[in-house]
Amino acid sequence: MLAVTILGNNSALPMHDRHPTSQLVTNGEQLFLVDCGEGTQIQMNRYKIRRSRINHIFISHLHGDHYFGLSGLINSYSLTNRTEPLHLYAPAMLAEILDLQFKAASAQLSFPLHFHPLGDNEIILDDKKLSVLSFKVQHRIPCWGFLFREKVKPRKVDPVKAYQAGVPPDFFSRLKDGEDYISPDGKLVLNIDVTKPSPPALSYAYCADTKYDESLISIIKGVDLIYHEATYLDDQREKAIERFHSTAKQAATLALQGNVKKLLLGHFSSKYEVLDVFREEAAAVFPNVEACKEGVTYLAIH
Amino acid sequence: MLAVTILGNNSALPMHDRHPTSQLVTNGEQLFLVDCGEGTQIQMNRYKIRRSRINHIFISHLHGDHYFGLSGLINSYSLTNRTEPLHLYAPAMLAEILDLQFKAASAQLSFPLHFHPLGDNEIILDDKKLSVLSFKVQHRIPCWGFLFREKVKPRKVDPVKAYQAGVPPDFFSRLKDGEDYISPDGKLVLNIDVTKPSPPALSYAYCADTKYDESLISIIKGVDLIYHEATYLDDQREKAIERFHSTAKQAATLALQGNVKKLLLGHFSSKYEVLDVFREEAAAVFPNVEACKEGVTYLAIH
Repeated sequence: MLAVTILGNNSALPMHDRHPTSQLVTNGEQLFLVDCGEGTQIQMNRYKIRRSRINHIFISHLHGDHYFGLSGLINSYSLTNRTEPLHLYAPAMLAEILDLQFKAASAQLSFPLHFHPLGDNEIILDDKKLSVLSFKVQHRIPCWGFLFREKVKPRKVDPVKAYQAGVPPDFFSRLKDGEDYISPDGKLVLNIDVTKPSPPALSYAYCADTKYDESLISIIKGVDLIYHEATYLDDQREKAIERFHSTAKQAATLALQGNVKKLLLGHFSSKYEVLDVFREEAAAVFPNVEACKEGVTYLAIH
Repeated sequence: MLAVTILGNNSALPMHDRHPTSQLVTNGEQLFLVDCGEGTQIQMNRYKIRRSRINHIFISHLHGDHYFGLSGLINSYSLTNRTEPLHLYAPAMLAEILDLQFKAASAQLSFPLHFHPLGDNEIILDDKKLSVLSFKVQHRIPCWGFLFREKVKPRKVDPVKAYQAGVPPDFFSRLKDGEDYISPDGKLVLNIDVTKPSPPALSYAYCADTKYDESLISIIKGVDLIYHEATYLDDQREKAIERFHSTAKQAATLALQGNVKKLLLGHFSSKYEVLDVFREEAAAVFPNVEACKEGVTYLAIH
């Protein structure tokens, strides 16, 4: 199960009890933090996030509303004597900033912090369960999105069908690996006849702060869930262009062109007190859309 | 009126809906921010602080729980197009950290930021209404306290008495400056007989993070209000010594020796869920004491 829990849905200025960008991506037991605006650890307390389970943090860019909560979170990990390594994927300059902050505090972390500077579009994490691709987006400063893709899971053995077809139980693990079975008397049992498909591999694209950019379509094409910023409504399109941000309508247009399953909007300007207008504007173009709410978990559904 | 509003009363780890250190010192229309832990601007929203009125910020030391909210606050000032200069009094290395953060964000502030590096004990702010002295305290890294002293105000003219004594109203401003009056026929009216004293000049000492240190007594002697950290209760005295922190009992002992009027305790360790115990332990030594609560304003009273 791939899901996203929103910790902050606002743009830079915290207002209306909305907070700067941060979200938790969960894939079963795996927890990933994406961006970490000021107050993220306080939001984690509020929503009872098991922060110690996060081993990978992704920072899209170095505007403060996307990372000013990171140093405090690292601090807290160290104060609570974390020992598990933490992997940080971020623009290179963040390493300099953190180093200077650690030096100023004479801080020694209680755990290994592995820093992975972001570069071109590349797979930055690849394990048994999923891969993460970083991809450049167009913002005022260097900025990356992240595409989470579950690995295709092996088919599951159907024990009743397999038994009825005469496959002995000690062969079940080989069925799982995709093998057919041939009985001692030469009878062929096709793998596909005694196994059933696993749930589909899901995907989630986090597009960070970006202007409307059709070159992203080839990357996000067909994903189950996409987060695209919508700082403004479309009557502020000129302002969005000028600041390398997007409107709700533009986000919906990209989702439609990318043939994605579901769209999440976020990074709302503080000038908007009510958020329904974002969903309404986008839904006219792309119906399966939500304006992100803090504390809510959104599922990727195939 | 000199007063302190608590925005964060906890030590480093935000917990129990308590936040890292920050407080607002007000002297009439003047607003000063002292320390700025993560989430300070969000606390300002919560307690409806008129943040645009703050022109001077004091940072005691560079442990993150005392300044990780500063960059976000500066960011917000710039996003809301502040033009008023902001004066920042802080350890020198903070300028490097901020510069690097501004560079990473390609940020241009909308207002002049004047950085004043802290040094020896010295008057760092001196205007018509008050002065601020920075003083070194003993912590694990370089750390300063701040002593706010109202200026003695001129005596107020008692218009009824002055009129009855034959002082013409156009001389009242000179009475205010302390002059006696001599009438055309040579009669002397003593200033003290036709004026009344203004309220006493008040003082507030913020002692930041510090171990118990009797050398502070000469600095804080007789102040109307003192804030002294009490990270632990006295059964944790060894831990306090090791970490250059203080206990509630130690804070009270210093207040007693310094003959101050009132003591505020803060910077409570997250291991304590309930705070009454801090007040109780201190009150046995120094009765006029409070365990700081967030959102509460404490007055300096002579």
